[in-house]
Amino acid sequence: MFKELNPPSRVLMGPGPSDVHPRVLKAMATPLVGHLDPSFLQIMNETMELMRTVFETKNELTLAMSGTGSSGMETVFVNLIEPGDKVIIGINGLFGERMVDVAERCGAEVIRVEAPWGEIIKPEQIEQALKNHANVKAVAVVHAETSTGALQPLSEISQLAHAHDALLIVDAVTSLGGVKVGIDENEVDACYSGTQKCLSAPPGLSPVTFSKRAGEAMARRTSKVQSWYLDLSMIQNYWGQERFYHHTAPISMNYALREALRLVVEEGLTETWDRHWKLGRALQSGLEAMGLTLHVVADHRLPQLTSVCIPDGVEDMIVRKQLLEQFGIEIGGGLGALKGKVWRVGLMGYSCQPRNVLLFLAALEQVLLEQGVKVREGEGRTAAVEAMQK
Amino acid sequence: MFKELNPPSRVLMGPGPSDVHPRVLKAMATPLVGHLDPSFLQIMNETMELMRTVFETKNELTLAMSGTGSSGMETVFVNLIEPGDKVIIGINGLFGERMVDVAERCGAEVIRVEAPWGEIIKPEQIEQALKNHANVKAVAVVHAETSTGALQPLSEISQLAHAHDALLIVDAVTSLGGVKVGIDENEVDACYSGTQKCLSAPPGLSPVTFSKRAGEAMARRTSKVQSWYLDLSMIQNYWGQERFYHHTAPISMNYALREALRLVVEEGLTETWDRHWKLGRALQSGLEAMGLTLHVVADHRLPQLTSVCIPDGVEDMIVRKQLLEQFGIEIGGGLGALKGKVWRVGLMGYSCQPRNVLLFLAALEQVLLEQGVKVREGEGRTAAVEAMQK
Repeated sequence: MFKELNPPSRVLMGPGPSDVHPRVLKAMATPLVGHLDPSFLQIMNETMELMRTVFETKNELTLAMSGTGSSGMETVFVNLIEPGDKVIIGINGLFGERMVDVAERCGAEVIRVEAPWGEIIKPEQIEQALKNHANVKAVAVVHAETSTGALQPLSEISQLAHAHDALLIVDAVTSLGGVKVGIDENEVDACYSGTQKCLSAPPGLSPVTFSKRAGEAMARRTSKVQSWYLDLSMIQNYWGQERFYHHTAPISMNYALREALRLVVEEGLTETWDRHWKLGRALQSGLEAMGLTLHVVADHRLPQLTSVCIPDGVEDMIVRKQLLEQFGIEIGGGLGALKGKVWRVGLMGYSCQPRNVLLFLAALEQVLLEQGVKVREGEGRTAAVEAMQK
Repeated sequence: MFKELNPPSRVLMGPGPSDVHPRVLKAMATPLVGHLDPSFLQIMNETMELMRTVFETKNELTLAMSGTGSSGMETVFVNLIEPGDKVIIGINGLFGERMVDVAERCGAEVIRVEAPWGEIIKPEQIEQALKNHANVKAVAVVHAETSTGALQPLSEISQLAHAHDALLIVDAVTSLGGVKVGIDENEVDACYSGTQKCLSAPPGLSPVTFSKRAGEAMARRTSKVQSWYLDLSMIQNYWGQERFYHHTAPISMNYALREALRLVVEEGLTETWDRHWKLGRALQSGLEAMGLTLHVVADHRLPQLTSVCIPDGVEDMIVRKQLLEQFGIEIGGGLGALKGKVWRVGLMGYSCQPRNVLLFLAALEQVLLEQGVKVREGEGRTAAVEAMQK
């Protein structure tokens, strides 16, 4: 039959998953207790507390859904949206489009607010949409667009949404643990994330948080949530003191999430963000010093995900294949509108280390030179190291 | 902040999760490759092949959903059922009731066929329902009712469903890897399972399999699947050669599932079932020899989950608490109609070992004696060991 599991060794510098911290891998290998064991209740309570710290919120309803980040997206929409509800969705990349698909399956009337992939959604656009449509239930934006590398500012859009009595929904799958999300400060009403990006855990859980306002909206529902598996009215009774059985929690993944969040809190939230900003900027300086062009303008670039324009005449797949096979480095290709046009380079969580910046710049330089691209040799490294030392 | 993860040591003999095999725990701690890495495609292909072996099917559409067993239940219903479809559901425990809830959220018109908790659904009941209702889309039953310990025979119900041109849906969450499921032999059209029962992996994935007939039914849909996260029309393109990105697969859990299935195949399917039957019967003989009563009649008892009637005057919680705190043994309480009336004792997968049978009988005897129950000392052990040696 099939041999012992022996996957190749990789440095994960794509759009996620990122490298899992060794302490998190160790947590994954811990023997299980039952999902209704009193000791597991304590682990869950601690994990909720850690999630609140990292989300920067006091929201009571903060827990981890038993699926990946996309299940968190679906959780938010199925619980908040009822058929006929109007939702404004900002679309400037793949995950905005995904929100539209998910929302429409909930029966939402979607009002699309679009920007080119790689740009941000401007507050004026949201304002206009809110003026054009009465009784909008929610405004949804992607905080860190993993498909483009753009960072969406939240505060103005939040104010606009609330001025029009709409909820603010935020996709923080790639932002949480990498850049400040600030749930309470930005008055975000519903937010979902994933474990496999800046939290350095494997994919498999989706931390979510809901404001009191969102809770009230859920309580006012007149129809049943269309998903049993993601129905928060039941799931919160399992995460709460009632411990009412809903479904068997993914215990090992909860162990992993707890350890991953503990690592972020140990390093410090500000320190974690600073590391991402410093190394992300170093990578970006290095790439530009090599002579490459970045897809997103400087002001809106994420530190944890950089999209680099593929130089003319260079074969996307050859470069990525060589990086993977010769050096064991994974980066991402472009998606949708950016397919074949950019590479996506992640520096997320445990993958966000100075040595990975140097390694990637050196490997890319080597591969591009072999492809006949005139990169300025060594200048990427020099610029990156300079930026790191600032 | 919070301390290092240090859960208590348990022997998991409840209704699941069961103890995870050490080789599976080791697989969980393996560093990740990306979810689009060519090496991961091979791991997925091998896992699909192993799932087909354990499900005993040639079904092309056999893959693992990124959620727990309940997400598999929801996957089957959201993909097969459209609003207005008629579904006959056999209800003889909690999981039949859950199927009703899930199916109704898909807009199904549910025809309930009921039996007391602990009994099986009789083929005549299904036949009558099929005669009373034209154009039934599917008949659904729970193969191993985890809430009661009853094993539902499938073949006659399968023939009846197909004679009326209906699909057969089977919940095999607790049966797969413990007793024969026989997807092809029983002509099951859609089946879901979980990793945390007789497969000895942590909870977090749901192996599912669909017949060609079920695939055709999905292809004939006129409405979009209400769940984006569980939409098989997209997910099968990720598991297939196209490798079209849908959502980030829970990589570590896939590692775990592969190893768990490898263990079943190494032991041999028949040998695995024999072990469950032999030790399950040994436990049941032991409990009866002690003077206790089992809830399910002998002919319909599952080997991997036994429900024992709580003797008169005994406090459910005191016994379970003492088993857990003094001896580190987890068993389950009753649910729904059986709450406070039975204990549920699991012997699933890696937990299904001769030493656990002895340990549990000895511990229960001790606790019951302390509670003033007159059990026949030592007779449980003797009967169990005799049954094991048959």
